[in-house]
Amino acid sequence: MELGPPGGAGPAEPGPRLRGLRGDDRAASAAWLSEASAGRRAPSVAAVLPAGGSGERMGVPTPKQFCPVLERPLISYTLQALERVCWIKDIVVAVTGENMEVMKGIVQRYQHKRISLVEAGVTRHRSIFNGLKALAEDQPNSKLCRPEVVIIHDAVRPFVEEDVLLKVAIAAKEHGAAGAIRPLVSTVISPSADGCLDHSLERTSHRASEMPQAFLFDVIYEAYQQCSDYDLEFGTECLQLALKYCHTKAKLVEGSPDLWKVTYKRDLYAAESIIKERISQQICILMDAKEDEEHVGRCLEEMLKKELNHVKVTSGALCHAGRDLQQIILEQCYNFVCVNVMTSDFEETRKLLNALEESNLSILYPVVVISVHFLDYKLVPFGQKMEHLMQIKEFAKEVKKRNILLCGLLIYYPQKLWETLLTNIRIFTGWGHWKGLHQLVELQKPSPGELRG
Amino acid sequence: MELGPPGGAGPAEPGPRLRGLRGDDRAASAAWLSEASAGRRAPSVAAVLPAGGSGERMGVPTPKQFCPVLERPLISYTLQALERVCWIKDIVVAVTGENMEVMKGIVQRYQHKRISLVEAGVTRHRSIFNGLKALAEDQPNSKLCRPEVVIIHDAVRPFVEEDVLLKVAIAAKEHGAAGAIRPLVSTVISPSADGCLDHSLERTSHRASEMPQAFLFDVIYEAYQQCSDYDLEFGTECLQLALKYCHTKAKLVEGSPDLWKVTYKRDLYAAESIIKERISQQICILMDAKEDEEHVGRCLEEMLKKELNHVKVTSGALCHAGRDLQQIILEQCYNFVCVNVMTSDFEETRKLLNALEESNLSILYPVVVISVHFLDYKLVPFGQKMEHLMQIKEFAKEVKKRNILLCGLLIYYPQKLWETLLTNIRIFTGWGHWKGLHQLVELQKPSPGELRG
Repeated sequence: MELGPPGGAGPAEPGPRLRGLRGDDRAASAAWLSEASAGRRAPSVAAVLPAGGSGERMGVPTPKQFCPVLERPLISYTLQALERVCWIKDIVVAVTGENMEVMKGIVQRYQHKRISLVEAGVTRHRSIFNGLKALAEDQPNSKLCRPEVVIIHDAVRPFVEEDVLLKVAIAAKEHGAAGAIRPLVSTVISPSADGCLDHSLERTSHRASEMPQAFLFDVIYEAYQQCSDYDLEFGTECLQLALKYCHTKAKLVEGSPDLWKVTYKRDLYAAESIIKERISQQICILMDAKEDEEHVGRCLEEMLKKELNHVKVTSGALCHAGRDLQQIILEQCYNFVCVNVMTSDFEETRKLLNALEESNLSILYPVVVISVHFLDYKLVPFGQKMEHLMQIKEFAKEVKKRNILLCGLLIYYPQKLWETLLTNIRIFTGWGHWKGLHQLVELQKPSPGELRG
Repeated sequence: MELGPPGGAGPAEPGPRLRGLRGDDRAASAAWLSEASAGRRAPSVAAVLPAGGSGERMGVPTPKQFCPVLERPLISYTLQALERVCWIKDIVVAVTGENMEVMKGIVQRYQHKRISLVEAGVTRHRSIFNGLKALAEDQPNSKLCRPEVVIIHDAVRPFVEEDVLLKVAIAAKEHGAAGAIRPLVSTVISPSADGCLDHSLERTSHRASEMPQAFLFDVIYEAYQQCSDYDLEFGTECLQLALKYCHTKAKLVEGSPDLWKVTYKRDLYAAESIIKERISQQICILMDAKEDEEHVGRCLEEMLKKELNHVKVTSGALCHAGRDLQQIILEQCYNFVCVNVMTSDFEETRKLLNALEESNLSILYPVVVISVHFLDYKLVPFGQKMEHLMQIKEFAKEVKKRNILLCGLLIYYPQKLWETLLTNIRIFTGWGHWKGLHQLVELQKPSPGELRG
């Protein structure tokens, strides 16, 4: 089942975000990370991801872990979140036989690394147990090793951060078991047999048990080997198994709101909006150099900075700005405005598209390119300009196949360039806060007759 | 504090959705509703909405009930959900002094009815108590009457349906208290003093207590009068107060997933997507009549029906189609495509805009109008056409003030009209399933010089 690392190196998210670590936590994390990076004495860590669920609460036929978010299956986001953590050596995913090929396809298409697939059981606990068995056994063809610590996570919690993974892993090493918790959103009650309130629980003295959880491998594997069929069928809580069968009291770690589980259809909407917001926060404006237009670039930069976290302006023809562009692509910018002032054709846009295609940037998220052109009617007749710009429809169709969304923008005013440009960029970004940025609008193509007429 | 009914009648949502009622429930509901509609013997019902929270979990400065969703504050959606239920006589909203003017503005702007405002307390329980006091006391200037049953709901649960309101009200009449419940999403655990797992709760024997809840007024008012300062400060559960102080065991009613509480920023995203999806499911295509173009209309209808729930095509000039249009507006359609084939100006679009403005349809939700024009270069020179179409920018600016989002679409091909039109409508609807429909794209305005040149 081991798929091995795929050919190309898929893009990774920005480095670890170890926010919120303090005191002892920070010291332990630093020690752990330095050992991990030096490749010595660091505890070996693997992750198990049960992904055999049917997602019946979602009310859609597709199991929720395979539901598309910006056209990519949800589980791929979760795998991305785990694989960017370098000290997790193996990620074992348990999927049902009928979804095995789908899952293999996802791993290949999105170039996920360090993934092994095992067959899911009929319940969540049985799936986890299958994942643990794959890690425990020394199968002849398996590249998997028995880890010291194992993290268990849900396929439908895509926003897990490295800091909480590290916290539960460190706590598991010390306590044998650890799990993320969150405050309760609703009061929990206990109904009586007749469907009436028996009692309500004190909200402050209870917590919601979330994922990820982590265990010393020997502890949780022992617990699963000992636990009853009833536990495997109806239990939900790994921490409880460790307590019941190995007398290991799990350390509880406060998690962030990001840990929430995609359960209902509304959660898919939320996930999509969160991802859109993340990839919309950075924009790069490429301009072909000219003093006047550099001024345009600076104005645009100033105004966009009020709305976005990261705005980068690069001036000069792309052959000169190539190094800047490579850096910007490395920093995971997914939005580009290519302003073509000097030339009336697509030379600069084409260069940008080539650079993007070579970079593999669009494997995980769609990349938006707005190709801006100015109609200076004093210099170029309208018809001639449009003839040139017609090509963009073909480009757009072509690069769409590689997840690049190209749109063209023709500005008719030679005066007040930057104001017009800004307005139009805003329009293209949809209704409210750039959330609609990922959208394809093509230039209208006039019919040849009209152009000649 | 009574604001009284505002002048104009605001648009109401479609009628009650009493789905999921069975057997006894259905009989009780039918009896209740027929009494309510006959205006006799029906138990009088009021609602109390505590809205004094600061929304600190949201991580934004605005309290979450006032956060905008499609530019309208969240609480307005909740009020809309309650006021469309005709048998709820009064809705008492508790807001803090500092938000009182904001709240009054919301009630006026969105034309909410049967709303009374009272000052919130420093905790949720104190706010509810203030709301109950306003209903209990016979204040000289108050139009409020002491109800038989009172519903308590949250300002941040905007998607409550009439069926669950009815269920809890009926159950409260019979049992003295009732509340909506939902299955737990996460396992609930109890931590020990050292931050480790003490025990986890059996998930199947516990439920999340949600809103709405309902009570015999005398029961809950008595409970609040008797309860301790500690309860008022730290308690969260009204059902528990009724149990503790009036020995009333609440009936628990299974709620739908819609009852969820907007707690985190992601919930705002989800709410926005849900609302967008709802108002995007219906589209009306208006065409000026001609046999050829009626065919266009039918093709468009067939294709759009694959993507949307309700597609309505009206042919014939608007003066003739006026009655159809009134009916469509009454049915709460928020998306219009106005296809101008016969005329080269905005006559039809202007009539539509007038009808929409007169209807008040856009008070609660933005209305999208796509004005489609064809460039038949054999008949009309490009310049002349564009000169006409330039006006749309002014229209768009004007109607935007009244929450109508107008965009123009110029189609250059005289052949294969409907294919082109469909493609372009799809493009305007944004990336994926019409969610981006609410967006303003203006026609580019060529400069006069270019047109003459």
